[in-house]
Amino acid sequence: MNHIERIFCFCLLAILFCLGSKPPVGAFGPTPFADDSTELLQKMDGTVRHFGDLSRQIWEFAEVGYKETKSAALLKSDLRAAGFQLEENVGGIPTAFVATWGQGRPVIGILGEYDALPGLSQEDAATRKPRASAAPGHGCGHNLLGVASAFASVAVRNYLAEKKISGTIRFYGCPAEEGGGGKIYMARAGAFDRCDAILTWHPGTRNRASLSSSLANITAKFRFYGTAAHAAGSPEKGRSALDAVMVMNLATELMREHVPESTRIHYIITHGGAAPNVVPDFAESFYYARHPDMPILDGIWARIVKCAEAAALATETRMEMELVNSVYNLLPNDALTALLDHNLLRVGGVRYTGEEQSFAEALRKTFTGEDAQPLGSQESVQTPEAGHGSGSTDVADVSWIVPTAEFNTATFVPGTPGHSWQATACAGMSIGRKGMVVAAKTLALTAVDLLTDPRQLEAARASFDKRRAGHEYLSRVPRDQNPPLNYRDQ
Amino acid sequence: MNHIERIFCFCLLAILFCLGSKPPVGAFGPTPFADDSTELLQKMDGTVRHFGDLSRQIWEFAEVGYKETKSAALLKSDLRAAGFQLEENVGGIPTAFVATWGQGRPVIGILGEYDALPGLSQEDAATRKPRASAAPGHGCGHNLLGVASAFASVAVRNYLAEKKISGTIRFYGCPAEEGGGGKIYMARAGAFDRCDAILTWHPGTRNRASLSSSLANITAKFRFYGTAAHAAGSPEKGRSALDAVMVMNLATELMREHVPESTRIHYIITHGGAAPNVVPDFAESFYYARHPDMPILDGIWARIVKCAEAAALATETRMEMELVNSVYNLLPNDALTALLDHNLLRVGGVRYTGEEQSFAEALRKTFTGEDAQPLGSQESVQTPEAGHGSGSTDVADVSWIVPTAEFNTATFVPGTPGHSWQATACAGMSIGRKGMVVAAKTLALTAVDLLTDPRQLEAARASFDKRRAGHEYLSRVPRDQNPPLNYRDQ
Amino acid sequence: MNHIERIFCFCLLAILFCLGSKPPVGAFGPTPFADDSTELLQKMDGTVRHFGDLSRQIWEFAEVGYKETKSAALLKSDLRAAGFQLEENVGGIPTAFVATWGQGRPVIGILGEYDALPGLSQEDAATRKPRASAAPGHGCGHNLLGVASAFASVAVRNYLAEKKISGTIRFYGCPAEEGGGGKIYMARAGAFDRCDAILTWHPGTRNRASLSSSLANITAKFRFYGTAAHAAGSPEKGRSALDAVMVMNLATELMREHVPESTRIHYIITHGGAAPNVVPDFAESFYYARHPDMPILDGIWARIVKCAEAAALATETRMEMELVNSVYNLLPNDALTALLDHNLLRVGGVRYTGEEQSFAEALRKTFTGEDAQPLGSQESVQTPEAGHGSGSTDVADVSWIVPTAEFNTATFVPGTPGHSWQATACAGMSIGRKGMVVAAKTLALTAVDLLTDPRQLEAARASFDKRRAGHEYLSRVPRDQNPPLNYRDQ
Amino acid sequence: MNHIERIFCFCLLAILFCLGSKPPVGAFGPTPFADDSTELLQKMDGTVRHFGDLSRQIWEFAEVGYKETKSAALLKSDLRAAGFQLEENVGGIPTAFVATWGQGRPVIGILGEYDALPGLSQEDAATRKPRASAAPGHGCGHNLLGVASAFASVAVRNYLAEKKISGTIRFYGCPAEEGGGGKIYMARAGAFDRCDAILTWHPGTRNRASLSSSLANITAKFRFYGTAAHAAGSPEKGRSALDAVMVMNLATELMREHVPESTRIHYIITHGGAAPNVVPDFAESFYYARHPDMPILDGIWARIVKCAEAAALATETRMEMELVNSVYNLLPNDALTALLDHNLLRVGGVRYTGEEQSFAEALRKTFTGEDAQPLGSQESVQTPEAGHGSGSTDVADVSWIVPTAEFNTATFVPGTPGHSWQATACAGMSIGRKGMVVAAKTLALTAVDLLTDPRQLEAARASFDKRRAGHEYLSRVPRDQNPPLNYRDQ
Repeated sequence: MNHIERIFCFCLLAILFCLGSKPPVGAFGPTPFADDSTELLQKMDGTVRHFGDLSRQIWEFAEVGYKETKSAALLKSDLRAAGFQLEENVGGIPTAFVATWGQGRPVIGILGEYDALPGLSQEDAATRKPRASAAPGHGCGHNLLGVASAFASVAVRNYLAEKKISGTIRFYGCPAEEGGGGKIYMARAGAFDRCDAILTWHPGTRNRASLSSSLANITAKFRFYGTAAHAAGSPEKGRSALDAVMVMNLATELMREHVPESTRIHYIITHGGAAPNVVPDFAESFYYARHPDMPILDGIWARIVKCAEAAALATETRMEMELVNSVYNLLPNDALTALLDHNLLRVGGVRYTGEEQSFAEALRKTFTGEDAQPLGSQESVQTPEAGHGSGSTDVADVSWIVPTAEFNTATFVPGTPGHSWQATACAGMSIGRKGMVVAAKTLALTAVDLLTDPRQLEAARASFDKRRAGHEYLSRVPRDQNPPLNYRDQ
Repeated sequence: MNHIERIFCFCLLAILFCLGSKPPVGAFGPTPFADDSTELLQKMDGTVRHFGDLSRQIWEFAEVGYKETKSAALLKSDLRAAGFQLEENVGGIPTAFVATWGQGRPVIGILGEYDALPGLSQEDAATRKPRASAAPGHGCGHNLLGVASAFASVAVRNYLAEKKISGTIRFYGCPAEEGGGGKIYMARAGAFDRCDAILTWHPGTRNRASLSSSLANITAKFRFYGTAAHAAGSPEKGRSALDAVMVMNLATELMREHVPESTRIHYIITHGGAAPNVVPDFAESFYYARHPDMPILDGIWARIVKCAEAAALATETRMEMELVNSVYNLLPNDALTALLDHNLLRVGGVRYTGEEQSFAEALRKTFTGEDAQPLGSQESVQTPEAGHGSGSTDVADVSWIVPTAEFNTATFVPGTPGHSWQATACAGMSIGRKGMVVAAKTLALTAVDLLTDPRQLEAARASFDKRRAGHEYLSRVPRDQNPPLNYRDQ
Repeated sequence: MNHIERIFCFCLLAILFCLGSKPPVGAFGPTPFADDSTELLQKMDGTVRHFGDLSRQIWEFAEVGYKETKSAALLKSDLRAAGFQLEENVGGIPTAFVATWGQGRPVIGILGEYDALPGLSQEDAATRKPRASAAPGHGCGHNLLGVASAFASVAVRNYLAEKKISGTIRFYGCPAEEGGGGKIYMARAGAFDRCDAILTWHPGTRNRASLSSSLANITAKFRFYGTAAHAAGSPEKGRSALDAVMVMNLATELMREHVPESTRIHYIITHGGAAPNVVPDFAESFYYARHPDMPILDGIWARIVKCAEAAALATETRMEMELVNSVYNLLPNDALTALLDHNLLRVGGVRYTGEEQSFAEALRKTFTGEDAQPLGSQESVQTPEAGHGSGSTDVADVSWIVPTAEFNTATFVPGTPGHSWQATACAGMSIGRKGMVVAAKTLALTAVDLLTDPRQLEAARASFDKRRAGHEYLSRVPRDQNPPLNYRDQ
Repeated sequence: MNHIERIFCFCLLAILFCLGSKPPVGAFGPTPFADDSTELLQKMDGTVRHFGDLSRQIWEFAEVGYKETKSAALLKSDLRAAGFQLEENVGGIPTAFVATWGQGRPVIGILGEYDALPGLSQEDAATRKPRASAAPGHGCGHNLLGVASAFASVAVRNYLAEKKISGTIRFYGCPAEEGGGGKIYMARAGAFDRCDAILTWHPGTRNRASLSSSLANITAKFRFYGTAAHAAGSPEKGRSALDAVMVMNLATELMREHVPESTRIHYIITHGGAAPNVVPDFAESFYYARHPDMPILDGIWARIVKCAEAAALATETRMEMELVNSVYNLLPNDALTALLDHNLLRVGGVRYTGEEQSFAEALRKTFTGEDAQPLGSQESVQTPEAGHGSGSTDVADVSWIVPTAEFNTATFVPGTPGHSWQATACAGMSIGRKGMVVAAKTLALTAVDLLTDPRQLEAARASFDKRRAGHEYLSRVPRDQNPPLNYRDQ
């Protein structure tokens, strides 16, 4: 597609998505490329190595959610050195922080994450080689995520300072995205309240601004307490907690036919009894439920809880539910996405050296899935698509508070599965760092646009108001629930 | 075994059963055989043909529970002719009646039944030949049951009249034993209240007085009401009543491990949805639960009801339970059983003619089970055994109100399965009638013993008091529930 | 929307649906309205009453699938009178027939149906009044369906004859659409083989040509055979067929999470045991599975069969599957739909008299659903939408053999639920007949277009070839399976 | 009961148990009490303190199954010092050994065990005080078991040596009784093959020789392997191993109704998925099945395996079964039990000091069960009872190879629950040691009887032959399966 076609298609999608909408937000066209921005990009090229090193250090730390002490310290130190003011221990989380520079409106935020995933330790090699057995690894590339966002924040700060432009740039250090819901507790503490727009990105296998939503998610552990008894000697005296888990699971399975098609319910049994010859007096399931729309998810969740209560009733056991985490569905922002798409096109994709090409080819040999994404696609930028992905993220909660948009860059070899050792490998070597630079530049350009062109912010706000219309944000995590700082402990 | 051994063994069993009991009731030995009783038996021989004809007529009527209009009328007419006073429509049941003769205490009752079983119509032939397709038949031999009891009642009446002995003999016309629970409603109406002892028998494959109990039983239909929806178009709008049936069944199956070993729970699904393309808004299960002890059964039943409630809760349906029937576990009476055993031995077993032997041999070829009961065993009388059978009967409810005992005679060829066309065949021909005469004579002798020897009644009462100690009879059928007069309608 | 907008939107949809397609078939625009066609419509007005009467007669016959003897006879008689040649007993079905007029190519077919639905008998009144208790009724309006198609066929015949145009018009008398799959057996007999295009319609609540597909469907009964035993006496000797049904159902429920989202699986239990005190030796489930794509459905169905086999294995029972019916997903035809849309717009919607308006208002008071379709919408014609409906139809099988298209007209008051007594009522009175006339006229205009403009047929063929590309039609109904002529018997 | 009554009752039980048997084995009465045996007992009193110390050391070692290195070494050292010949590493098990003294027939064996139970560490105190958190403890009193058996072996050796009696006494050091099945592998190695009789005992809450059997047992892990997939993104690509576990469990639960009443089936889920957002590709259940009769258990087990196979079939997963352990039902020996009962009566029960009485009273306050066993009952000896317990033991496998009998002594305060911290406490203090001395003396007296009175051995053999008649011993543990030496590792 040429450029005109791209714009046409994007408009078309926006039309279809916002059926009956007024002139599409963002459609008056983003700010034309300024000389200033060229200069900005050139200056960023000067610190690529420095930020690349940071990303490798955090990749080596490989700290899991809420335990990202060294990773957070490294980023804080770098931002402090660049003149940012730090608010630490945000929301009672030791590794959450906000770094702010500048003054007055607008306030533009950029989200950064830096938590690793258990069990995904891997060398920066194209074959499976854990750096440490069963240790965590950056299989989601958050080492790149946090650093690119910091990189962009510093670049924007320098630009504002140099050009003497008023306004505020803010970096959000967000821990425990992977199931810990760090942003929920930061949001509860008001960290996002005085922001005009928020940008973020995520490592990926392609370059694309996102118009897509994510699934609202509620997760909880259902614990059943029964009565132990010798399973051969007096089973009639026992009340099996495992029976309760099975009744709950089955009732939920029967419910599957009677929920909307886009619902997702999945669970594991985390405790299924201690010894076969004892009627289990404790058993536990861990449930996730998801839907593109939080209020509908609420109704589905209430029915899952009924299944759990019914299981306790039928088996004469006692049930306790611990809500572990809950995130919203992401609210896409048409205007911000158009702007990100525009800037991403300007920055362009990722080109491999011969060595990187060889690495990519070798790595692709380890892929088992049937992914049609061709090698080479990392060089181009793809058109945003509406819809909703199949994942869930705590970025979604932010998107209900502030106009927020997201994009991906090709930090991973095309076709790399998510949360894989292959992703860890890419995130630790030059391919990952190249994608990271694309991200940092796109973030910086977009933040500057938002800081300098009030129409862009207005459009973002209009987009936000339109999509959020009639709904209020209220996290399903109980207000008295503390961040699960030890959720990664065994 | 010789006679001494028999008595020894019987005592032993009684000892074991009533551990720590005082001298076993009945153990002082039954009344020695009187000349009078020889005369009684001889006189009965004179009316064997008459009562045989009655049994054949009722066999041909083959009327199911609560619909035994002609059968009851026939028996009433015969008893009225013999001078009995009739109380009709007992407990609001058109085919229930009490026929009484004599005056004053003691009052000895004999139970009679006359309901047939659906689908067991059969000629009196040794090969499968229904008299009418899918019609009822006397596959439990109740045509013999009712008539032998009436035969005995008339014989006792004649004896009392002739010997000018005071006391009362009473025949109970009891409908719908097969699942209709007729005696429960007769008991509720007080029909058994002023009786000193009650005797009954049941057609069988051997001759034996019974020390055995039966299983208390509660039966109910669980009905679930959901929300219909097009199963392809909007399954998410449906709430499946069939899902509820499945959850209830599964929860109950999981409960099986956690009830006492001698519990029985069984069910069918009587309504499992109307059309596959509609989410079922109605579904129904029919449950039986049994245990040798009613209070324990109560606890088990309460848990089944919880499973049903849980199923409704989990599936967002509504549950209604209709208690269909409930009978007690039978309270054996050691003294009465000893007396029945004594008289049954006196009367002796059943001897076949050559023709009957051929019939028996032919019939046994149609048996598929692995029954060790040999042909010829119908000639002897077997020793009572304690324990409990696997069936349930409404005679049990009577046994908690009045000292009651029961015995079997070999009306069916040894090895005949219960509720079979083979049993129907036997009940309609000479083999059945021979067993019936053994029963009538045993009943008559025993009733006379009870009417003339106060020590026997005292022992029966002591036995009754000992076993019932600490428990009160209270039928689990709700007091406001009417006899299910149409329970056999489809 | 004005006319230009409509055309634009339609094109847009076609573009989106056939991504990357060559110039949309049908998009060169349908034949401009000819004077001839005005004349055709005027002539049809002259026989509206006659065909209205026929529709009422068939409404009164209300014959269920494969039993439509009088209904088929009436239509045959009318078509024979108009000079059509009749082929009867098509595919071995007494009520299936093909009526043909003319000669040579092209051959244009029009499908007609005339089966009623059990239990939906109703007067032509706005309140629930069955004409006969529990009797069938035309709750799907097939009385209108068959007659409109015959009406159109006769009109086309007259037009061809008068204008001396060569070509063939053919009416297909198709029994048992409602679950009997009549067209499958007609197709197997080659009835649709020499046709160039096929048109059909269906009574509805709106006027709209259809671009939508339907769900491929396989339905079967799974029968399990176990071993009976007394459920209290010797349950360990029994092997429960009901257990097998439960295992199968549960395994299938667990599978639900692991099939594509647009799959539909639904079942009822058609036999769940005979008596609670007998371990069931027979039990039966009736399953439907559906998916928008037949080959994918095949894979899902194979897994359901595995669940059934597993259930037999686990419960030591025997399983038999009887495939009851199977229809394909409908293959929409973009060119034919464009043509139908064009002609439907020309004919226009349905206008109510004051009396009809009152009837409609009264009837709508009996609707319980939350249908947004407003009263008055019956007057306009709506734009086709792609996608797939939630139902299944044997028209789909025809659509894989011949280019086929379908449309709806507002024979029912807007908001009328499908398969309802309200639909029966409408189908028997003037509102239904007005919609029927719209249908007949649209069919006639379109058939004439196809008979006279070769470009239209070419476009239809191209559309067909494109969508069917790479797939062959092969009914999943076994070749040796006869039409289930008695499937409506109880 | 006086002594005559006891003998009478015992005979009666034997009669009942061996219905139709010839004169009960052992019933000619055990050897009258000899002066020599009085001397034997007196000499044993001289080493009570020594063996008490050993038992306390092993109690402190508290080593779990197959890890009883120090415990076995201590016993070996003591027996070697007493002149026994040691065969070590029996059956390839480092902690299994056989210690033999003497020569020629008869050969009398005494079994000793010494493994502790995980998590039952406890001080010798009447309130809960673990010696080490979550550490093992002798909650089954095997520290007493092994030492009493060694104590008796040494006493018998001394007696034989002193009296110059020929014959052989043998101590079996048997590891891992608690679920490790040590004796199965010792038996496979032929360790019990040349023995004439084997005696053993078990710590308990009463003094009683055992006529009771135990349950045959088969245990296995069922492992299912499916296909992982993102549970929200592409659940349709996953095949859930947890689904397979659920189908297997449910099928087995439905089977429960259809196995003999005395069957026991119990299971836990040992692995129920790794993370809720991933379709589990691995899941595992751990099953036990038991029945009083091994061939019947085989049939039940085959059906459980079918349920597992069916689960794999229905869910498109793969199943692997690992048989973990299997023991026989114990074959009681009437003659040996009669002899043990006789000698146990001679030795008498356990008398508490004031301090022990206080300890017992305090400990009983921590009991929650409703045990009717009164304090004081430890002083008397109770009559053997037939039947079968609810547990399983690898002593059973020995009992099918050699005439074997067992008894209990009151090493635990009456009412102490099995496998409890209270049992650990008793096993470590004087109450446990008193019961151990009763056991050692009874074993010694009985072994001497068997070594000196050939009639006793003949009776034991006759008893053995009668009960085993027609059955051959063949362990269900595969011959190529090694002892699970690390089964207690986490």
